[in-house]
Amino acid sequence: MDDIAKILSKALECDASDRILEAGTLYDKGLHHLKQLIAATKNTRIAKKYLEHMSQYKERSKNIQLSIKKLLEEGTVLQNISISQNSMGHSYESLFGQYLKSDIEEIYLEEPYLHRFYQYENLIVFFELAARKCPNLRFIKLITKRMENANILNDIRNDLRSRHIGLHTSIDEFLHDRKIALSNGVIIKIGRGLHFFKAARGEYALGQFDYDYRECLKTDVDIWTSAKTMGG
Amino acid sequence: MDDIAKILSKALECDASDRILEAGTLYDKGLHHLKQLIAATKNTRIAKKYLEHMSQYKERSKNIQLSIKKLLEEGTVLQNISISQNSMGHSYESLFGQYLKSDIEEIYLEEPYLHRFYQYENLIVFFELAARKCPNLRFIKLITKRMENANILNDIRNDLRSRHIGLHTSIDEFLHDRKIALSNGVIIKIGRGLHFFKAARGEYALGQFDYDYRECLKTDVDIWTSAKTMGG
Repeated sequence: MDDIAKILSKALECDASDRILEAGTLYDKGLHHLKQLIAATKNTRIAKKYLEHMSQYKERSKNIQLSIKKLLEEGTVLQNISISQNSMGHSYESLFGQYLKSDIEEIYLEEPYLHRFYQYENLIVFFELAARKCPNLRFIKLITKRMENANILNDIRNDLRSRHIGLHTSIDEFLHDRKIALSNGVIIKIGRGLHFFKAARGEYALGQFDYDYRECLKTDVDIWTSAKTMGG
Repeated sequence: MDDIAKILSKALECDASDRILEAGTLYDKGLHHLKQLIAATKNTRIAKKYLEHMSQYKERSKNIQLSIKKLLEEGTVLQNISISQNSMGHSYESLFGQYLKSDIEEIYLEEPYLHRFYQYENLIVFFELAARKCPNLRFIKLITKRMENANILNDIRNDLRSRHIGLHTSIDEFLHDRKIALSNGVIIKIGRGLHFFKAARGEYALGQFDYDYRECLKTDVDIWTSAKTMGG
């Protein structure tokens, strides 16, 4: 019970400070534990009390999901960029680095494809940029289609944890679209998601480290801002 | 003879526009060819004419070497930076990116150690930065101690050539010090040369691409500016 109390009090704390992605994740975790407790208890009075707690947290979790959904659907267009086939100079930093600012505490990322090695590399390049540009970043929620290399995601999670950034991953096998939502209300939608770079021209060529030197695949980038911030 | 004429006229052209690193390399190449011509000719009048040419270009090549030597020895200190063991945030860009400017046409680089793979990777990271920050960069002269992986340097040279940057490498088996001299007169001397980064914490960790996340080995960085520019 102590653990659940800790989880739910942390959830309330995050919720109060508008870190709703982390709050939502904690509510769900707490709810899962509460459910198990109810199944195990024989005291109906206590079980009833737990159930009351549950409905309260369920409600809050649902509200968070709704507010994310709303954020992802409404907004004013900031920028539409067309990346043409084989063009260069479109690193994540060049494309949307200007929107990654110090007021961002949470990032929501839908990226269905994370099973090839270069796809994890792209993820790292994105996280390197986000961590550098957003010194107050504390939580990243990543939704993907399947997780064949969970050990790689664990390595990345451990590294981020040491930098005081939580990474929570979940699976949605029907996920198709790609998007990045920042807690300050900016949403970045790239047709190909993070994976629109060709490999560098060779193992020893410019473009190994600086993605501005990589040729790109044709894709569209739409950036817009929601009237609402993620927690507001 | 046509080839020699082309080489030497290109040398004079580079020399006139203060691209002395490329000029020096071309003078030496032309001199080598002239020597072979003299050895092959039976006509003493022609041989004498070649010899006159030779002494003229030799003189010019020696002057260039002297002017580089002078540039590397004299100057006013711009910055002394001490990198402490295990500290981070010292990518080439963070350290000396501000000195890489659009007026730079040539870079002179003494880097004795280029045989391990990570050392070539560091070289690529440096070239990525230089090519990005110096749009008018046309020639890089690289001096190293031994060249075990000439094929890797060839790959890098080919890639740079496609970006209109010449790379000329030469061997000096007694080379020990490391330095970078920019044609605008700025000299960067790092105790450990390009190789003061530890590996990233893991294959899938921040620091794979952005060297600001890498822990460093203790070393000193001295940056100074010569009253003279490279060609002046």
